[in-house]
Amino acid sequence: MLGLASRTGPDWTERAIAGLDEILLDHTHCEKKAASTAINLIFRYADQTALMAPLSSIAREELAHFEQMLAVLAERGIAFRRLQPTDYAKGLKQGCRTAEPGRLLDTLIVCSLIEARSCERMQALAEALPAVGEPELGALYAGLLATEARHHGAYLQMARDTGLFGEAEIRDRSEALARYEADVLEGVHPAARLHA
Amino acid sequence: MLGLASRTGPDWTERAIAGLDEILLDHTHCEKKAASTAINLIFRYADQTALMAPLSSIAREELAHFEQMLAVLAERGIAFRRLQPTDYAKGLKQGCRTAEPGRLLDTLIVCSLIEARSCERMQALAEALPAVGEPELGALYAGLLATEARHHGAYLQMARDTGLFGEAEIRDRSEALARYEADVLEGVHPAARLHA
Repeated sequence: MLGLASRTGPDWTERAIAGLDEILLDHTHCEKKAASTAINLIFRYADQTALMAPLSSIAREELAHFEQMLAVLAERGIAFRRLQPTDYAKGLKQGCRTAEPGRLLDTLIVCSLIEARSCERMQALAEALPAVGEPELGALYAGLLATEARHHGAYLQMARDTGLFGEAEIRDRSEALARYEADVLEGVHPAARLHA
Repeated sequence: MLGLASRTGPDWTERAIAGLDEILLDHTHCEKKAASTAINLIFRYADQTALMAPLSSIAREELAHFEQMLAVLAERGIAFRRLQPTDYAKGLKQGCRTAEPGRLLDTLIVCSLIEARSCERMQALAEALPAVGEPELGALYAGLLATEARHHGAYLQMARDTGLFGEAEIRDRSEALARYEADVLEGVHPAARLHA
């Protein structure tokens, strides 16, 4: 699915449903983090004019989701509190090359993979939630996952739009980093988190 | 105007109109910086739940303006390039207390003052631009300045919404920091910048 190298099993979904409050809180933080990542890229790659508007647009959508999730937390009486991040994002960052322009390509691909993984897991939530008496939350996730899928494609399109990388290079690196993402995710301590 | 302790004179407007390309570029960066500041506050003050949604909403609006300004630059053939920041933001930061909760109050007030100053200068641009054959750009600024005025009020409202500060404290500190802002601005080397 969306270029991912592994498939999420029912064990994750069971864990997520059992720890739904924590999933909702973690997801709220993820939206905030995704916005922040896009804005950091706007600052770091200000010379890549073609990336500015797409990154800004992604950041705006993530912030709108952040606000949507804050409202869900408030409705359910879940306090918005800090959460210790898992090793997922840190692990993915370690898989990116540090010299430009490879760093840029790897970063855009990693962003596309995070969006893909979020999309995959939101689909699992959208399918499982109605059966546990949470049809509204299921519908919310069904709505959000479409944006995640679009962002997945947007990050790969940005890699093309830089004009710095060939199609084959983008494809090869995407495949290699997808395998890496699957390994990193496999190594994260199991918890009720979107990326654990 | 909007609690500012000094008024922008015609010398600034003349400088801005003479260096319009640089003003447009600088303004584009300012919108990006304003979004980034709001998001940084979301991370730093995650415990202040009442601030999360208003900050996120401000960041989204600043990003929308950033995209709007990128389009203006593109239409006019102005390259989006890096600009050395002036000493304005750095100077304002130095006027903020470093111990909490004073740091939070001062930061919110400084954000409100930056919005107020932007609003004041956008009004000067909105009034001056039609006379130099730029009515469309004048209309753009007339539209944007209303948002800046609203953000000015939103930052002060956030200070109240924390429940940490009394009305008198917010008013006294706003007046003191407004005088400080006027001094900092006075000391910035004159240039075709929104805050110089």
